[in-house]
Amino acid sequence: MSVGVLRTEGRWWVERDGLAHAVDTAARTTAELLADREALAHPAPDGVPVADLALLSPVTTPCRVVCQMVNYRSHAKDSGLNPDGVPITFFRKASGSVCGPYDRVVKPPHVRLLDHEIELGLVLGAPLPIGATVTDADLPAYVAGLVIADDVSARDVQLSKSQFYESKSYPTFTPLGPRLVLPEPEEFARLVDLRLRLSVNQVLRQDRTVADMITRPAAALTALARFQEMAPGDVLLTGTPGGTALKAPPKPVELLGSLLPPALKWRIFFARQARVPAYLRHGDVVTARIATGDGTIDLGCQQTPVEYA
Amino acid sequence: MSVGVLRTEGRWWVERDGLAHAVDTAARTTAELLADREALAHPAPDGVPVADLALLSPVTTPCRVVCQMVNYRSHAKDSGLNPDGVPITFFRKASGSVCGPYDRVVKPPHVRLLDHEIELGLVLGAPLPIGATVTDADLPAYVAGLVIADDVSARDVQLSKSQFYESKSYPTFTPLGPRLVLPEPEEFARLVDLRLRLSVNQVLRQDRTVADMITRPAAALTALARFQEMAPGDVLLTGTPGGTALKAPPKPVELLGSLLPPALKWRIFFARQARVPAYLRHGDVVTARIATGDGTIDLGCQQTPVEYA
Repeated sequence: MSVGVLRTEGRWWVERDGLAHAVDTAARTTAELLADREALAHPAPDGVPVADLALLSPVTTPCRVVCQMVNYRSHAKDSGLNPDGVPITFFRKASGSVCGPYDRVVKPPHVRLLDHEIELGLVLGAPLPIGATVTDADLPAYVAGLVIADDVSARDVQLSKSQFYESKSYPTFTPLGPRLVLPEPEEFARLVDLRLRLSVNQVLRQDRTVADMITRPAAALTALARFQEMAPGDVLLTGTPGGTALKAPPKPVELLGSLLPPALKWRIFFARQARVPAYLRHGDVVTARIATGDGTIDLGCQQTPVEYA
Repeated sequence: MSVGVLRTEGRWWVERDGLAHAVDTAARTTAELLADREALAHPAPDGVPVADLALLSPVTTPCRVVCQMVNYRSHAKDSGLNPDGVPITFFRKASGSVCGPYDRVVKPPHVRLLDHEIELGLVLGAPLPIGATVTDADLPAYVAGLVIADDVSARDVQLSKSQFYESKSYPTFTPLGPRLVLPEPEEFARLVDLRLRLSVNQVLRQDRTVADMITRPAAALTALARFQEMAPGDVLLTGTPGGTALKAPPKPVELLGSLLPPALKWRIFFARQARVPAYLRHGDVVTARIATGDGTIDLGCQQTPVEYA
């Protein structure tokens, strides 16, 4: 059965039936913890209620945070793209954007359009060297853990700058957790059944299973290994399903836009977007869950209030 | 006077009049070396000819490699952009792409359009925290060193994927060096006089001074610090001047292209680009120099042969 790992200040825990059992380890980083399988296998017999703990991201930083662009068919359609025509594309987030599963997501004053993106995060357990080919069969040799991520995005910054790096890298823009789930090798066949659900103020916005994914984990890691080595504790975020606040304009509007000078085009686009009520507002609460329908693999429930700085 | 630092396997050197003087230090990384100012100030009295050394990148990896997109007026014009309308934009390169100043630049088999971009690299000497404001006056407190970089780019990958990360991150796509020049604080006023020159097979392609830059280093670091902390030994590449092989198509052609499905648009564009003789071919030699006109600051001469794998 999969193991659920939690982290608090200076301590690691294994979660069992709502109780957290302390792990006897000197590990300070996620990579060090993943290497200490003996300690993970024998946590303290007595547990404390998980609800009593102040949980941090189970992934420690600094680490590489690599992301897949447009990787769900439903999100491709939202973005006005043909799901079969999107090349597999990666970008980076600063790991300084990582925060805990119940932390506040803080919008910097200059950001106008704040959006959510629930994503399945894969945490590496072994080095991924340049040139590696990863198959479904050896995926468990590379991926040690699964975690809920919200790839929070400043849409006005993202679209006007074209490179996604800054818009998704502000502090608190990557809540991770609560749980880092370490599946058994045979459970990786169930990844496709994982259901991602994100609600804002209890209203369901995103709701798809991994079956909607365009490039699945083994193929994605193979593509990534063409140019980026990864180390234990590094994270790959595998894209978000449809249902974000951002929707592409109709094709004729987009074509008209391409005739305008960029500054004017974006001014008009952002003025229209500012009237879309789905962008995150001060005081909103974002709730994200990822689990199989039968609960065999359950990454828990992340809940982050939105704050306008 | 500025200090020129060189690196060979397991050893650091200070360069003086063509001779390399060994540095007595336990530093393994560039960050550790920069912290050992005492050793740097007192290298061995006897030197060996620099030409006898097998030089490595003076910047060790892993480190952050952050890049500025379109940051010279001449390059903006080449790219069909209004230099005054380009927002300051950053992207990441994998530091696994770093290689030595005389190493081969290797084109992966799937890449079709290989291009060069000479850039001034700034090497951090102190932490840049989130929210920092950097002025020209305190730039020397953050930037310890200057280095020649070639931001080698796979244009077909870059343009079809839209995010620049993969196209610029293949191994050997970031030659650095030969010299890491540590200027005196008062020499930072001369940055604007640095002249960047890149030749392919002795034919000059890129030739501009930093005066052509859109966002200068202090303002760039301030913008970067909105979302990305930096550490000693990390690198900011500050953009390339005009003269790369890639030139934007005329505006009417671009507008027609926006009416086509993306796959067809790129097929036509890349077929045209494949006939541009300026893209790098197997056996080409790229030579890059950065120095002030009077040679007061001289980053040396980088020379990298191109190899098609």
